Parts: sequence; structure tokens; C-alpha cells
Amino acid sequence: MRAGGPDDGQLRRLIASLVVVRASGTLADHQRSYPQWELPNRSLQELLGQGVGGVILLGGTATELALRTRQLRSWSTAPLLLCADVEEGVGQRFEGASWLVPPLALGRLYGRDREQALRLAERYGACCGREARAVGLNWVLGPVCDVNNNPANPVINVRAWGEEPAVAGALAAAFVRGLQATGVLGCAKHFPGHGDTCSDSHLELPLLPHSRPRLDQVELPPFRQAIAAGVSAVMTAHLLLPALDPDRPATLSPAVLDQLLRRELGFEGLVVTDALVMEAIAAHTGAGEAAVQALEAGADLVLMPADALEAITAIAAAVESGRLQRSRLEASAQRRQQALARCAPPAADPLQAAAADPVLAQALITATLEVSGQAGGLGRFAQAASGGVNLVRVDQALQSPLQATDAQALTLPGAAGLAPCLVGTDTPSIWTASSDEPLALERLGPGPVLLQLFVRGNPFRGRAGCTEPWPAAIRQLLAAGRLAGLAVYGSPYLWDALRAELPASLPAAYSPGQMPAAQAAVLTALGLGEQGQAGDFTD
Amino acid sequence: MRAGGPDDGQLRRLIASLVVVRASGTLADHQRSYPQWELPNRSLQELLGQGVGGVILLGGTATELALRTRQLRSWSTAPLLLCADVEEGVGQRFEGASWLVPPLALGRLYGRDREQALRLAERYGACCGREARAVGLNWVLGPVCDVNNNPANPVINVRAWGEEPAVAGALAAAFVRGLQATGVLGCAKHFPGHGDTCSDSHLELPLLPHSRPRLDQVELPPFRQAIAAGVSAVMTAHLLLPALDPDRPATLSPAVLDQLLRRELGFEGLVVTDALVMEAIAAHTGAGEAAVQALEAGADLVLMPADALEAITAIAAAVESGRLQRSRLEASAQRRQQALARCAPPAADPLQAAAADPVLAQALITATLEVSGQAGGLGRFAQAASGGVNLVRVDQALQSPLQATDAQALTLPGAAGLAPCLVGTDTPSIWTASSDEPLALERLGPGPVLLQLFVRGNPFRGRAGCTEPWPAAIRQLLAAGRLAGLAVYGSPYLWDALRAELPASLPAAYSPGQMPAAQAAVLTALGLGEQGQAGDFTD
Repeated sequence: MRAGGPDDGQLRRLIASLVVVRASGTLADHQRSYPQWELPNRSLQELLGQGVGGVILLGGTATELALRTRQLRSWSTAPLLLCADVEEGVGQRFEGASWLVPPLALGRLYGRDREQALRLAERYGACCGREARAVGLNWVLGPVCDVNNNPANPVINVRAWGEEPAVAGALAAAFVRGLQATGVLGCAKHFPGHGDTCSDSHLELPLLPHSRPRLDQVELPPFRQAIAAGVSAVMTAHLLLPALDPDRPATLSPAVLDQLLRRELGFEGLVVTDALVMEAIAAHTGAGEAAVQALEAGADLVLMPADALEAITAIAAAVESGRLQRSRLEASAQRRQQALARCAPPAADPLQAAAADPVLAQALITATLEVSGQAGGLGRFAQAASGGVNLVRVDQALQSPLQATDAQALTLPGAAGLAPCLVGTDTPSIWTASSDEPLALERLGPGPVLLQLFVRGNPFRGRAGCTEPWPAAIRQLLAAGRLAGLAVYGSPYLWDALRAELPASLPAAYSPGQMPAAQAAVLTALGLGEQGQAGDFTD
Repeated sequence: MRAGGPDDGQLRRLIASLVVVRASGTLADHQRSYPQWELPNRSLQELLGQGVGGVILLGGTATELALRTRQLRSWSTAPLLLCADVEEGVGQRFEGASWLVPPLALGRLYGRDREQALRLAERYGACCGREARAVGLNWVLGPVCDVNNNPANPVINVRAWGEEPAVAGALAAAFVRGLQATGVLGCAKHFPGHGDTCSDSHLELPLLPHSRPRLDQVELPPFRQAIAAGVSAVMTAHLLLPALDPDRPATLSPAVLDQLLRRELGFEGLVVTDALVMEAIAAHTGAGEAAVQALEAGADLVLMPADALEAITAIAAAVESGRLQRSRLEASAQRRQQALARCAPPAADPLQAAAADPVLAQALITATLEVSGQAGGLGRFAQAASGGVNLVRVDQALQSPLQATDAQALTLPGAAGLAPCLVGTDTPSIWTASSDEPLALERLGPGPVLLQLFVRGNPFRGRAGCTEPWPAAIRQLLAAGRLAGLAVYGSPYLWDALRAELPASLPAAYSPGQMPAAQAAVLTALGLGEQGQAGDFTD
């Protein structure tokens, strides 16, 4: 730190309070999964001692997180913002808490039963809030307020609350009410709307070519509704919107943050950037300059600058040079204080941190389970002498919902004698060069095939240019008389495309959720009900 | 519970203190991985309230376990035995603590450097003890005292400390000294020796056809050495030894436990059964009768009876009928008290529970790393424009050492442009029907192949009758000019068989360990040194 009078130290503390750094949810440095992003404890303790005002957490279990948040608070002299990307429940990121079906499932339900969908969205928010408090978080980085009107969207998709502005807005607002009633802050994201993009801002800067009238019609309404519901914070998108600002991405644009969000939409809460280390920003702008530009544009908090100390120093220099007004930062700090004042105190007992809500989780699965035909078909596996194949498609075998030790998508078919065959980008290929018969059946093993597809993102483009011809594969399995059942978990678009290929008599079911309870619900619908689970018990 | 006078209640408490039940290391019922084996909290609390004297734990993280053991102690009115199968370090079962290379690696090292091997074995034991205390355990179920003189052994293998009686005994004794000096109990297993079996007592009852002189020469010496080192407990094997007892497995045999272990070997510590729910026992004898027979035979503690209450009731009935002497149980309870009196008090701070010893873990990896040739070969991957294949063989993709988020066997080759291709019994087959060219190369993707094999057990028979022709596969890859490197993790027998196939110039290395640090050491030896790790950082 450069030399400076007492005022210099005060200015740096003021600035530090507006910075949110990233930490692992686990306790020891050696447990970090991403040491390149997650600060070691010594640095964390130092930064919090210098007044850094927030931490975003990822990794570990709910119980460990409860201890971790307590530890982080003990390192800070002032109340901290402790947040996480737990928009689908704390269990989405921290084992032991609830993992709920993705929001888009309620968007679909809304068309059939508006009242039930709204009620469930509010309970969904309350569940996120209750469990966040139980683990010591006071800020849930949700709801997603993007409208998923582009099924090819690789980063939003099922995370959105709807495919239409009115649906997404009504449900996001209900989520905010449920969440914030528990004394936990919410965060509407990604302003002004990330739904209609088909590139990933983690990797590059997407462009949204829409006019202002179109934005008013499609992108902005859910944010207006979340703001009307009192949402505490709004997160910016790393998106270029030439109609609003031809030069700067939304995160760094005064036209988007100050003019549109603050003045026109009248938002008086906290404006936080999306992570500044994401390539969409970091590839173009240095850590210090990006933080300065974000504050200039109207942000109150900067999330994950590539280097926190560099960001603090750059902001201090900008104040000293007159580029940034100190009063501007003081107003941000005051908004932060006001938000913290609305937070309930953290729960104290780590033994209660793994407090999942299985009733709500199950209610959501049941309400959003779509079953098309449950006739006999799969029942015979239970009796068959020599099994068949449980063909399971995931993005990657090693980062899939099947890693849970109670993955029902494996255990239930296993109990019925079906041998697992996992397919992902990290396993041997099952594809031939033929477009009519794309499956290399000899690689799967003999017998009837239960096909289970786990797909959350864009189903046909996927990652790394991979195109998986599942409609043709299903036709091939049907022609060979080998398709015995189909289960789809995640993408409603994939389900809609595939159900068209199926005869009415074929057992098939869909759940928007991918968690073990959703797997059990789908397989029960197919006639492979819950059974005892096999496994070693000790050495 | 049946009606009875105060004495009946006292008898049941006495009996209960000799029972060890199984629980999950996680806190909430819904987190249990094996609900069929792991009691729910209500039952646990009830049983501990009734005086059940021990709990064996599995699952969860080191930090959670520290809270869990504290919780279990709070449910008991008397000191508890809290144990786990952490013979390779607490991190073998509980994420965050140390996972050390398997003991057989030190057995191999002993041949080259006896003093170093003994020193490391003692530090190994001390590490297990220190970290056990940090998580609240007071009893480590190790060392394995079996002599691994049968490479086809499916359950012992690399878990043994040696392939010769003298080596296994010396190292196991060193482990016991290091462990018990920390105030944590050890347990020599599986008496009278499980090394020379080729079936799995989890599934069936193996038979050991050896004569008593042969047992004295091979099987018994390591137990004698562990006993001489003061080991606190001995665990029985579910094995039939006709030379000692033609009718009963060792666990239930007075000839083995009372006559041989107590009288001839003079062991005065705790005798505990292996888990009574294992099929080798449970398939033949009911939960209550098995517990009665084990105590009759000379055991002090019964581990995991299929039903704890049924076992307690059956034992009480056997006392009342005169089949078992009450004084016999009182002697067992006294041995248990004496063992508990030697335990250090549990550590109090769960924030310190994930206290791994990376220095020892690395020293063990380094000392046991065998490198045969490090010439150029793999270096080129770092520069190649378009990669190649990282072909990784595991038992199962979903229960492999590659599930760790920092699995270096994936990240290091990935950074050099090699695409992962995981092969296990749960992925598409890579095998053809040809014995000369057994690999279906077209399923792997193009380019040079780095072959990594994770095999701990019997390499060629494996599970489910699977025979994987790796020697022929290596000849095929060499003939096609595609083998760029070989890494073997785990089995020294597999490594010995495969290195014979390799030209001297081919980069190849072996580590007995399978953990991320061992992967990094092996790949560094191959020229694919440690590099930054890629990965998503947030949503």
C-alpha cells in the first residue's frame, strides 16, 4: 500500500467495502477446487481486515459452509455481505441442503395452473432464504430475470423463470417476495436481459442487437416486476447492447446502469456487477480499470475483480484524480448499509445447516413431472434373467448429477438388472458416421435399452460443437426393437423434440429436475419404482 | 424390550456396551449414502441412550465428521468408541484429511531401504492418529496384518504392508507405534490372516486350506509383531480354516479366538469381529445367533450386527439360559474400559478438522514413485496443435479417484491438449473380439494416446469376470505407433506385467497411490508437469 494520511486509509476502507471477493466454501486452503479463483485464507483474512465488504462462496457442504461463513465474519470488523449462486436452492451448490427443480419448470407450469405456479415460486424463494440463513449466507444471487425466448441459449436456458416476459416477471417477483421475507437479500440478474443470446459471456462478449422498444417489450418487464417486488439488488450483464451504448458492455455503461436502471426504472437498491474476471470483460479491460469503469457507470459493488488490491488501488487513484466522486462511493456504501440492515442475523447452529426441505423439493418435482405413457414396457426388466442396458447421456461423466452416491438413475435400473453405460464427452464414442443409424449398438452391450438423457443447456448444439443425433438414435433403437423406455431430465426443448418420435405405448417421462429425487420420480413413472440400494458397506 | 427387574436393565446396558453400530459421517438423515446400513439419527440416539458402546463411521467430510462425532458423544452417557476404516489416512474416507499411498508401497520400499520404510510407516501411523483425533475418532481400524502373498487377492492386495511375513510384521508394528503414540487405538486385522484368499468375504465365506505349521510361518507372524508392539485391538476374519476349526469361521470359532489368539498368542486387548452383516456370516447365521457365537468364541465386541436390538436381546437370553457367562461379558467390558482409558481426549475445534499433512503425503509419494524412462515422448503434447487422447482406465467412472475436482490425471493432460476418454465397467466398451488387436481404436478419437490405468485390486480378473487384455492392448498401440506414454496407479503387479512390454524410450511411470498428488507426481515424471487448472468459476 502506498503511503498516505489517515484519510487515505479511510478512503481505502470505503472502497474496500464495495468489493466482493471469491472464496471456497471449504475451510482449508488445500480443499479449494479452483485455487486460481479462490483466495487462500491468509489473503482473505488480510482483505477482510482491510474492510473488503463481501464474499461470494462456492464448494463444500452445507455444514462446512456454516462454519466457513462464521469464520469469515470473525475476520471482518464490520457486517459482511455473504453471497452465493444458489438460485436453485442452497443444495445446488452445497451438498446437504435443498436442490430444487430449475425455475423454467415453473414457467411451464404457469401455463396450466397460474396460482399453483405462483405459490410454488414464492415457497421456492422462501426455501432458498431459509436455507441460506441456516448456512450463514445473507444474499442469494437470484432470481434470474432473463426471458428464455431463445432455446439455443447456452448459459440461461432452464435457469430462467419463463419464456415470456409476463410469466418470467410474475414468477421472479414471487420468488423475491418469498426469499426476502426470510431476511435474506435477493438479486435480479442479468440486467438488462441475457435471455436472447447464443454465446457464453464466460468466454466472450455477446451482443444483443435489439432496439429500445423491443427491450421495453421483452427484456425489461421481469426486472421491472422484481424491482416492484422490492428486490434488494440487481446484477449487470456482460452484454453489448448497441441500441443503448455502442461502446461499452452493460456492466460498464452509464447509459445502461445510471440512465436506464437508476433513473428510468427507478431502482434504488444495490447494483452489483457480474464477475469482472469473466472473459467478456477481462479480455478487454484490466482488473483496476474495469472496476473503475463499473463504478463510474453506476455500479455500487464490484464482484470478483481479477485482483482485489489492484482494483482498490485503481479506484482510490480515480478518486484522487477527480475521475470518480468520493460522494458517489459514499452513496454506494450507504446503499450497502441499508441492504445489510434488512438482513436477519445468521443462524447459529452448524448441526442444523444441512436442513433440506424434501417436502417442497418433492412437491416441485411432482408438479412439474410430465408423463406420457406408463404402459407395461419396463416392468419386465424386474423379472428378466439377464438385464439389458441403462444408457445414460450426460455432459461429462465426471461432472454429472450421477456423482451423487444415491443416483437413482443408476441404482433403480441396476436393481432391475440393467447394466449402466454412461456416455459423455469424456467417455468412448458411441457414434458412427451414419446419419440414419448413428448409434454403434455393439458398444452398448446386448438387450433392451433404457435411454436416459441429462441435458440442461442447448440440446443439439451442446458444447464444443458436438451434435448428438438423438432423434435419429431413437428411431434406430425403435427399428431394432430395442428401445424399452426414455427418460429426459432438464431441457423441455429436448423432451418436446424427442417425444414426437415415440409410439404412444413406449414408457417415457420427463422431469425438469436432474437430482436423485427427480430421477426416482421419473423411473417410478416408468415402472422402475424405488427399491433397496446395493453397495459395499465397509472394508 | 421385555419386562424385567433392574438387573435385566443393567445386563442389557452391559451387553449394549459391547455392540458397535454403523452411522453415516454426515449429520442429517437425508445425507446418508447407504440408508440400508446406516442408522437414522432417531435410532442412533435411542441406541446410544441404551448404552451402545461404539459407532463405526463412513461418509462425509472431515469437518462434518468432527461435528458428527461430537454429536454422537452428546447422545451417549458414557465414553464411546468411535472408529472408521481409515487405514490409509483419514482422507481415504473423509474429504479434507490426508489420503496416503497404500501400505504395500512401503512393503516394496522396505526391500530397498529398510530404515526409511520403517520411519515412514511410523509417521504414517502418527498421521492417521493425529487426524483421527482431529475429527473426533479414537479408534483406527488398522493396520492390515495380512500378508499379501496372493496377487489375485480381491480384497487385501495393496492394503497389506508386505508380501512377506517379516516385512508386513515390521511395518505394521511401526504403524501401530506411530498411531497409538497419538492417543488413538489401533486394530490389527483380519485375524488369523486374509492375505492368501482369492474370494471376497463381503460376498461369500473364503476357505484357507493351510496347516498349522504353515500358519505359524506365514499368516501369524505379523499379528505377533503387532501384538508385541502393543496393538489395542484385533479384528477377526470371516474365513474358514479347517486346520483350526472345521466347522466355524474364525469370527465365530473358540479355537481361533480363545485358544489361538488369547491363549497361545497371549493377546490381552480387545477382540472385535469384522462386520457381522457381511454375507460370509449373515448368509449362514441370524443376527442374534451370530453375535452370541462371536462372544462365545472369545470376541469382546460385535461390529455391525444386522440388527443391534436383536443382537442385544439374543445375548441377554444366552446369559439368562446359562449359555454365556455374565462374567465373560464383564471381562470384555473391562477390556473396553481399559482401551478407552488409553485414548487422548478428542480435539475440540472443527475448524481444524481438515488438517491434512501434505508433507508426509508427498514424501510417501516421492519415496514410492518408480520411474522407468522419462525421455522426450510426452513433451510434444504441450506444443501439438491438436492434441491426442488421454485414455484413462478406472474400475468405474462414477466411483473413481477422478471424481476429485482437482484430478490431475485429467487436468494436466487436458492442459496439454489431450481429450479425456474414460473407460470403466460403466462406460461404452472399447474392446473388440480380437485377442491380437483387442482395442477398438476408432472409439477413442485420433492422435497419440497417453494410457493411464487405475487398478488397485487383481488387475486381470477384476470384477464381474471381466478380463482386460492390457498387455495385448499396449502391443497394439505400439504397433500402430500411437502409444505416447503409460501411467499405472495402484497395483504393482499390473505395473510389473506391463513394463515388460515397453521399449526403454517410452515415457512410463508408476505410483502405488491414486490420489491427485500421486497423479501429479507421475505426470510430472512423464513431462506433463503441474500447470494452471481450467474451470468455470461462477454463474
